[in-house]
Amino acid sequence: MAHKVYLFNTLSRKKELFTPLNEDITTVYTCGQTVYEDVHVGNAKTYAVWDLLVRTLRHLGFDVKHVQNFTDVGHLTDDADAGEDKIIKKAKSLNTHPMELVDSQIEEYYEVMDEIKIQRPQIAPRATGHLIEMIDVIQNLIENEHAYEIDGSVYFDVSTFPSYGDLAKLDLDNLLVGVREDVKIISEKRNPADFALWIKAPPEHIMKYTSPWGIGYPGWHIECSAMAMKYLGETIDIHGGGIDHIPVHHTNEIAQSEGATKKKFVNYWLHSEFITINGDKMSKSKGNFVTLRQLIDEIGAGSTKYSLISNHYRTQADFSMKQAKSNKKRYNKILRVYHLSQQLLHYNTDYANVSDESTEFLTKFNEALADDLNTPKAFAQLNALVSKMDILRKEQNTAQLSNFMNTLDIMINVFGLPFYKLSHDEIEETQSIVNFRLSLREKGDFEGSDLIRKHLNFNGYTLEDQSETETLWYKPNFKN
Amino acid sequence: MAHKVYLFNTLSRKKELFTPLNEDITTVYTCGQTVYEDVHVGNAKTYAVWDLLVRTLRHLGFDVKHVQNFTDVGHLTDDADAGEDKIIKKAKSLNTHPMELVDSQIEEYYEVMDEIKIQRPQIAPRATGHLIEMIDVIQNLIENEHAYEIDGSVYFDVSTFPSYGDLAKLDLDNLLVGVREDVKIISEKRNPADFALWIKAPPEHIMKYTSPWGIGYPGWHIECSAMAMKYLGETIDIHGGGIDHIPVHHTNEIAQSEGATKKKFVNYWLHSEFITINGDKMSKSKGNFVTLRQLIDEIGAGSTKYSLISNHYRTQADFSMKQAKSNKKRYNKILRVYHLSQQLLHYNTDYANVSDESTEFLTKFNEALADDLNTPKAFAQLNALVSKMDILRKEQNTAQLSNFMNTLDIMINVFGLPFYKLSHDEIEETQSIVNFRLSLREKGDFEGSDLIRKHLNFNGYTLEDQSETETLWYKPNFKN
Repeated sequence: MAHKVYLFNTLSRKKELFTPLNEDITTVYTCGQTVYEDVHVGNAKTYAVWDLLVRTLRHLGFDVKHVQNFTDVGHLTDDADAGEDKIIKKAKSLNTHPMELVDSQIEEYYEVMDEIKIQRPQIAPRATGHLIEMIDVIQNLIENEHAYEIDGSVYFDVSTFPSYGDLAKLDLDNLLVGVREDVKIISEKRNPADFALWIKAPPEHIMKYTSPWGIGYPGWHIECSAMAMKYLGETIDIHGGGIDHIPVHHTNEIAQSEGATKKKFVNYWLHSEFITINGDKMSKSKGNFVTLRQLIDEIGAGSTKYSLISNHYRTQADFSMKQAKSNKKRYNKILRVYHLSQQLLHYNTDYANVSDESTEFLTKFNEALADDLNTPKAFAQLNALVSKMDILRKEQNTAQLSNFMNTLDIMINVFGLPFYKLSHDEIEETQSIVNFRLSLREKGDFEGSDLIRKHLNFNGYTLEDQSETETLWYKPNFKN
Repeated sequence: MAHKVYLFNTLSRKKELFTPLNEDITTVYTCGQTVYEDVHVGNAKTYAVWDLLVRTLRHLGFDVKHVQNFTDVGHLTDDADAGEDKIIKKAKSLNTHPMELVDSQIEEYYEVMDEIKIQRPQIAPRATGHLIEMIDVIQNLIENEHAYEIDGSVYFDVSTFPSYGDLAKLDLDNLLVGVREDVKIISEKRNPADFALWIKAPPEHIMKYTSPWGIGYPGWHIECSAMAMKYLGETIDIHGGGIDHIPVHHTNEIAQSEGATKKKFVNYWLHSEFITINGDKMSKSKGNFVTLRQLIDEIGAGSTKYSLISNHYRTQADFSMKQAKSNKKRYNKILRVYHLSQQLLHYNTDYANVSDESTEFLTKFNEALADDLNTPKAFAQLNALVSKMDILRKEQNTAQLSNFMNTLDIMINVFGLPFYKLSHDEIEETQSIVNFRLSLREKGDFEGSDLIRKHLNFNGYTLEDQSETETLWYKPNFKN
C-alpha cells in the first residue's frame, strides 16, 4: 500500500491528500524545455523538482507514468500570441535551420540532465511530432463552439468558458474588457483575452504546416493539452510547471482541454518557485543566468543536484556561487563518511544481527517528503543519519553501520544524487598504495611518500593522515 | 577548392566523379534506424560508413549538410505492405506504449553511437514528426495521378511511373503482372506492385492519425521522401542506405519523390554491403546478431570503430569475434606509438624546422578515400605512418615526429576513431610514478616496485621495462 502523500494543489491553494484517479497508475505531466538555449540553473531547478516528485511517488508506492514535452515550435517571445517564434529567431541568428538548433539543444539538454541524474520521463514528446493531434483538439473545440477561425487563424473564445482563469484567480469579467496589459490586443479576436490555437503563417515563415485552416503553426499552449491527453488520458493526476505558467499557459491548457473533453483536465496542479539572482527571476530573456553546465563545472554534479533540491520547491531561493560552493563542502562530508564506511565494511564482513536503528531516520525522511516534498526536512534526516554513521564508524560498530549504509543508499536514490561509490577492487587497490605510503613514511622516505600522495590526489583521492600508522582516504566530489 | 572525389553510383553501377548540385553545399540523406531493438553490428556498420562519408567529404573540402531519420512509425515487419508495425509489435511484447519504446531506443542508439564517435547528423528527423509533410506529398501524388485512394488507404500506381524499378534494374512489365513473390497481393491494389502511401487503421491500432482519407498511418517509404525533401530540397546530392533497400524502399522513394516534383530526386545513390555471420546476413529478424554494445564491451570503442570501417563499404564482410580481437591488438599498437610519441614530444619541445615527410602519407590517404572511400588502402597509409613514427621515436627525431603526429591526428579525425590522448599533466604525473618505481627497483625494493606496477595496471596503463633505468608506458584500449 502506498504511503499517504500530501501535495499543495494550486487549484485550492491548499495541501491535499493525493489520491490518484486509478490506484494502479499515477499520471504526471510536466512542462518541459523550449529548446533554443542552454539549460540554466532556473530551468534545471524546475526539472529537478519534477524528478524528485516522480522519484518520491515511486519510493512511496505509486506506479508513476511521467510525460514531459520538448517545445520545438510555436513558443513565441511573448507568451500572449505576440512576437517571434523563439526557436526560429535564435536559429536565424545562428544562420541554421530551426530543426538543427532543436536537435543540438536536445542533445545538450540530455547531456547535462543525465549528469545530474534527472531521470528521463517515460515519454518526451516533441510539439512537432504532435501537430495532427493538436489539430484534432482544435477541430473539436471549433465543433464545441469554444473556438473560432478568422482568416486562417483559430482562437479560443474565453467568454464561452465560464471558469476561465480560475487556476490563476483571474477575473474573467475584467479579462473580457481587456485589462490585462500584457496581452497585446489583436483586432481580429472577439475578446481581448482570447488566445491563439492556430496561427496563420506568412509565406516567409519557416516552421509551418498544412491545416484545415490553411498554412500555419500552432499556438504555444495547445501542444501540452494534446500531448498530455494522448499519452496520459483526458484527466490526469498531476500537472507540474513553473509558477510563471499559472496565469497564461496553464490557464489556457485547462480551457482547451476541458473545452474539448467536457472533463476535468488535471486533479493536482503543482507549481515550483523561481530561482532568483539578486532578487530577480533567473531567465534567459533577462540574461541574468548561470547555465547548468557552468554550475556543474564549478561544483560537480552531485553538489549541483543537492543545490537544486535542498530548498523547498515552493520557496523562492536566491542563487549565489558562494552558497553553491558551501553545498559542495557539505556534499563532500557525505561522500567522506560514505567512503570511509565502505572501507570499514569491506574489511569487516561478519556483521552481527542487530535491530536496525536507522529506520527512524527513514520514517522521518519519508514523512518529510510525503508532506509536499519537504526537502529541507528530508535532507536534515539524511545529514543526521550521516553524522550518526560517522560515530558508528569510529566505534567500529559495523553491524549497525551496515544498516545505516542501506538506509543512506535509499535516501541517495530517492533524491537522485549523482554519487560516486568505491568499487571493491578500488578499495583494495587504493588501500594497498596507501599502506605502501605509510611504510615509506615509517622508513623516513618522505620524498617517496609525498610523491604517492600527489599521485593519489591527481587521481581524485583525498588523504587524511591520522597517525604514523593510519591514513584515512576518500574520493570527494571530483570532476573526472 | 575541393579534392576530386569518385563515388560508386548505384544508378549507373559505376564510379562517377562527384559534383554537387550547388558547389557551396553538399546534401546527404541516409536511411536511419527503425527504433525498436538495440543496434547490432550490421546496423552500426552502415551508420559508420555514412559517418565516414560525411567526414571524408568535409575533410576533402565539401560543406556537407547531413540528415538521417529515425523511423518510429509505419515500418511493417514485411517491407511490402504486410505484417505488423515493428515498433507496435515490440512495444506490445514489453507491455509498454510504442512511444516509450521509441524514446528509450533513441537514447540507447545515441549512447552507443556517441561512444564510437559516429557524429550526429545535423538533423535527425522522426517519422512521427513529419506526418503532415507526408500527407502533403501524398496529396500531391494524387493530384498528379500517380496515386489513388481506395477505402481509406492510398497507393502509388507504379504503372504511371515508367522508370519504376530502374535503380534496382527491375522489369516493370513483369512487376505489373505480379511476378514478385515477396509482394503479397492486396486485392484492392490496381497493380500487384503498387505500394502503400497511407494505410487505413483498424480501430484497435495504436499509432494512427487523422488524414484527408480518414484515420490511418503512413506507409514506410513516404517518410524518407518527405523528410529528405523538407530539409535538403527536391533534388539531393547523395542518398545512402543498406543494399537491401534497393529493390523496395529506395525504388519507392524515387517513384514518390519524382512523381511529386517531376524532378530528379537523387544524383548519387550509395549502398553499403551487409555484415554476415557464417555467410548469412546479420539481422534482427534472423536473430543471428551481435549488438554494438556487446562488441564495445568486448574490444573497446576504438577497435570497434576500426572494425566497422576497415573493410571497404561495398565488400560483404563476415563478422567473427576472433577478427575483432585481432583488430583490438592492431589498434593498441597505434595507441602505443601515439602515447610514446606524446611523451617524447612533451619533454623535447625544441623542434628544428624540417621539411614534412608525412605529407606523402596524407596525400595517398586522401587519394584512397577519394576513390569511393577505399578504407583498406587508407588504413594501410595510417599503419605505414605509425610504423615510421615508431622508428622516428626510437631515433629521437622529434622534429619529424612532430609532423607525423599532426598527420596522424588528421587521419584519426577523418576516420572518427575514439582515441584516448594523454594530457600533459597525466604524462608528468605518470612519468614521476614510473621513475619512482625505477628507483625502488634500483634499491632492490621489488615488492614496492611490483605494487606500483599493479596500481598503474589497475588504472589502465601498460608498462614495458626496457632496462634498469628505462620503462616505457602507455594506455591501451582500456575500458574505463
